[in-house]
Amino acid sequence: MSKTKKQVEEITAMEDDFAKWYTDIVRKAQLMDYSSVKGCMIIEPYGYAIWENMVSILDKKFKELGHENVSMPMFIPESLLQKEKDHIEGFAPEVAWVTHGGNEKLQERLCVRPTSETLFCEHYAKVVHSWRDLPKLYNQWCNVVRWEKTTRPFLRSSEFQWQEGHTIHETAEEAKNETMQMLDVYHNFFEKYLAIPAIKGQKTESEKFAGAESTYTIEALMHDGKALQSATSHYFGNHFAKAFNIEFQNRDNKPQNPYQTSWGCTTRMIGAVIMVHGDNRGLVLPPAIAPVQVMIIPIAMQKEGVLEKAKELEGRLRKICRVKTDISDKSPGWKFSEHEMRGVPLRIEIGPKDIEKNQCVVVRRDNLEKTFVDLNDIEVAIPELLEKLRKGIYKKALERRNQMTYEAHNFEEFENIAKSKPGFIKAMWCGDENCEKKSKEITAFTSRCIRDNEEKIDTKCAFCGKEAKHLVYWAKAY
Amino acid sequence: MSKTKKQVEEITAMEDDFAKWYTDIVRKAQLMDYSSVKGCMIIEPYGYAIWENMVSILDKKFKELGHENVSMPMFIPESLLQKEKDHIEGFAPEVAWVTHGGNEKLQERLCVRPTSETLFCEHYAKVVHSWRDLPKLYNQWCNVVRWEKTTRPFLRSSEFQWQEGHTIHETAEEAKNETMQMLDVYHNFFEKYLAIPAIKGQKTESEKFAGAESTYTIEALMHDGKALQSATSHYFGNHFAKAFNIEFQNRDNKPQNPYQTSWGCTTRMIGAVIMVHGDNRGLVLPPAIAPVQVMIIPIAMQKEGVLEKAKELEGRLRKICRVKTDISDKSPGWKFSEHEMRGVPLRIEIGPKDIEKNQCVVVRRDNLEKTFVDLNDIEVAIPELLEKLRKGIYKKALERRNQMTYEAHNFEEFENIAKSKPGFIKAMWCGDENCEKKSKEITAFTSRCIRDNEEKIDTKCAFCGKEAKHLVYWAKAY
Repeated sequence: MSKTKKQVEEITAMEDDFAKWYTDIVRKAQLMDYSSVKGCMIIEPYGYAIWENMVSILDKKFKELGHENVSMPMFIPESLLQKEKDHIEGFAPEVAWVTHGGNEKLQERLCVRPTSETLFCEHYAKVVHSWRDLPKLYNQWCNVVRWEKTTRPFLRSSEFQWQEGHTIHETAEEAKNETMQMLDVYHNFFEKYLAIPAIKGQKTESEKFAGAESTYTIEALMHDGKALQSATSHYFGNHFAKAFNIEFQNRDNKPQNPYQTSWGCTTRMIGAVIMVHGDNRGLVLPPAIAPVQVMIIPIAMQKEGVLEKAKELEGRLRKICRVKTDISDKSPGWKFSEHEMRGVPLRIEIGPKDIEKNQCVVVRRDNLEKTFVDLNDIEVAIPELLEKLRKGIYKKALERRNQMTYEAHNFEEFENIAKSKPGFIKAMWCGDENCEKKSKEITAFTSRCIRDNEEKIDTKCAFCGKEAKHLVYWAKAY
Repeated sequence: MSKTKKQVEEITAMEDDFAKWYTDIVRKAQLMDYSSVKGCMIIEPYGYAIWENMVSILDKKFKELGHENVSMPMFIPESLLQKEKDHIEGFAPEVAWVTHGGNEKLQERLCVRPTSETLFCEHYAKVVHSWRDLPKLYNQWCNVVRWEKTTRPFLRSSEFQWQEGHTIHETAEEAKNETMQMLDVYHNFFEKYLAIPAIKGQKTESEKFAGAESTYTIEALMHDGKALQSATSHYFGNHFAKAFNIEFQNRDNKPQNPYQTSWGCTTRMIGAVIMVHGDNRGLVLPPAIAPVQVMIIPIAMQKEGVLEKAKELEGRLRKICRVKTDISDKSPGWKFSEHEMRGVPLRIEIGPKDIEKNQCVVVRRDNLEKTFVDLNDIEVAIPELLEKLRKGIYKKALERRNQMTYEAHNFEEFENIAKSKPGFIKAMWCGDENCEKKSKEITAFTSRCIRDNEEKIDTKCAFCGKEAKHLVYWAKAY
């Protein structure tokens, strides 16, 4: 038991130091390691397996909706990046520049892609000629670079893995539908697969993507009350098409600029999972993305028949879930802590006494609840328990978010809540950027998203008292 | 039929201009497009789907053998790249350098990874402490950059997609076994999945990887008689470990340097498929990697019941293969040519007369052989025909390679063959680099690989007449 204790004690309690708790988990659960380039991380096998599961679910969904994967170059010539004014202004301060190839100075600097709108546009200008060529529904899984000053594993890194969808359409309506459809795909992925309640909404002008006509976002509330922008979907209108001379013959045989979207999500989602579901024992992984869903831990492994029974169980379970048996020479207690820290959803304990009774003990990671399961029923019981865990962690996260969501009707209320209670504040907003600045400067709360579908809570702006236009969610953000 | 002809005529005949034939295929089958950065290509959906199929087969095999995927940074600090002398000498002339992040000059230049040995070594030095930590069997799928002067789509590009496996072991023997095991994985992938006969062997000193103790390769013969180095597997011994201070406590509790391997294959394999199986109608894709294995083409589509029957067939076939129905408004003849050009292994023609007879016509892409298949037997017939096609294209490639493999016993013979007959030359070699230089300078043939398992054909070196050490395959190479 001393070993067990020691390992658990190694994780800083989240109440003591949330940032340190987070770092402890990413390092001790072996999700990532730092590299010698600031802000560039090594994603270790366990972390990468989580990412692979995320990719696999999303990629399947994208393809079902008709999207096709492509691979664009990682370099963008400076002149190409500059073609869309807002876009270059937004990204220029944070790109990495390649100036030399081998021993020769390049004639034109190349930036390492921070995002690939310009590359897709250049390609679309070449291949889109007629309305028959539309839509193009392209996506790519790749790495991008944004030269960040302050970095944190998964949440903000100079290089990160992501997917970027780029689509091009005949009509504005079709492009707008695509934008909203992909926002829904992300929202559904968060709710159903990551078991994270997420709020959908529109970004304000000051928070939207550089070059977009409108940006939509899903925002999730972390355990410490900060919001995490978790995926975004952008509608571009046709001004990228104009800047890049993308033109097609429409159904009336007239030249026309098409309409575009882009949408993306990143390894940041791993950070969201940690900060929504994790606890002081470590990670808690939603079953859909857990590299190992069930860990079998044989008790009194040296006794006759135990290992055989454990392996037999593993063989049966392999058909319905991702399962492993821990046959290392560590003590069972040590193994319990280790796999709890790594967030394995269920563990099965099986020893000589269990085998006598033809049963095993299944322990849920989220609430440590024990269930005795008849070995004959294991194929039914395990999927049920995984589903219960998923619902359980979703409910817990939703309740916490509801408890941490407040309403403010004027700036005094807003300031008081912002000072004392981490979480979301719902407050009406007039639409003026100055009110956003006021909030940011005084409370460090920024507008997370406009929620026009939700019932308005007041008629006046909480910041200036003028007529309110939108209900907005505000929070401190990662 | 005029349309059909036109489309086929668009591809240059390989006998007229092999390089142009190749370029025609990659462009017209929509595998790739050029970007505005020299040597960096856009892999279009059809090309990328081929790559995804390759990745999926190999990734599964790697994992079955215990390998785990990770993600390393794309940047390597100059000082890190310099740690292993041979390695930096080999790669420095062809790396891209990042010198600025945003508006600031970096304190140290970063190279965009040309390969990641140095990054893996730095990580291993941190995480490998005891023999219990070994082996580490890591792999990553990523993009790398090598600043090439002359580039060709898929075959040699400044940026390319690949996988790089990096493993670290307790003993030299274990590492050597891993090196050979992974060479076999590649060889098997080429023979069974790509239907490409490939020759396994060891590289000579002058052709081996920068920093490796020994390099193994698989070499395939293209349609034009040139060889393509198609995948490599390297044994590093422990000198990378020494250069990077990787040390572990061995089973006798003594500090020891571990042994390493690396192995990789790239999007170049798409080039191999084109140049081994392609013909003057376009691509011929092996079924295992074909994005669409069966294309159904309804004949007299407007007639009652035809489209329904085609769709019904598609529904049944979807359970056993990757199938699509072409319902575009092009003529059947046009569709035949188009899908032939894109290398779809089988096409099914189904029209009113076929439906009357409860049959369809299946046409093989490789030899255009027609088979009438009873609709009741379709689930049996299609997999059989796909397998026949795979065997057929393998056999054709093998026969061609055998016909194009010659023996030379002295330099006169060697020169005569090299001048007049493209292909492999088998010739004995003394082991002296000067004989390789002689061959390269006079005939442009380079040593492709040492074949010590094959029967020696002479006792003397074909170049200098001294005592021969090895049987070597020689060829002009891509």
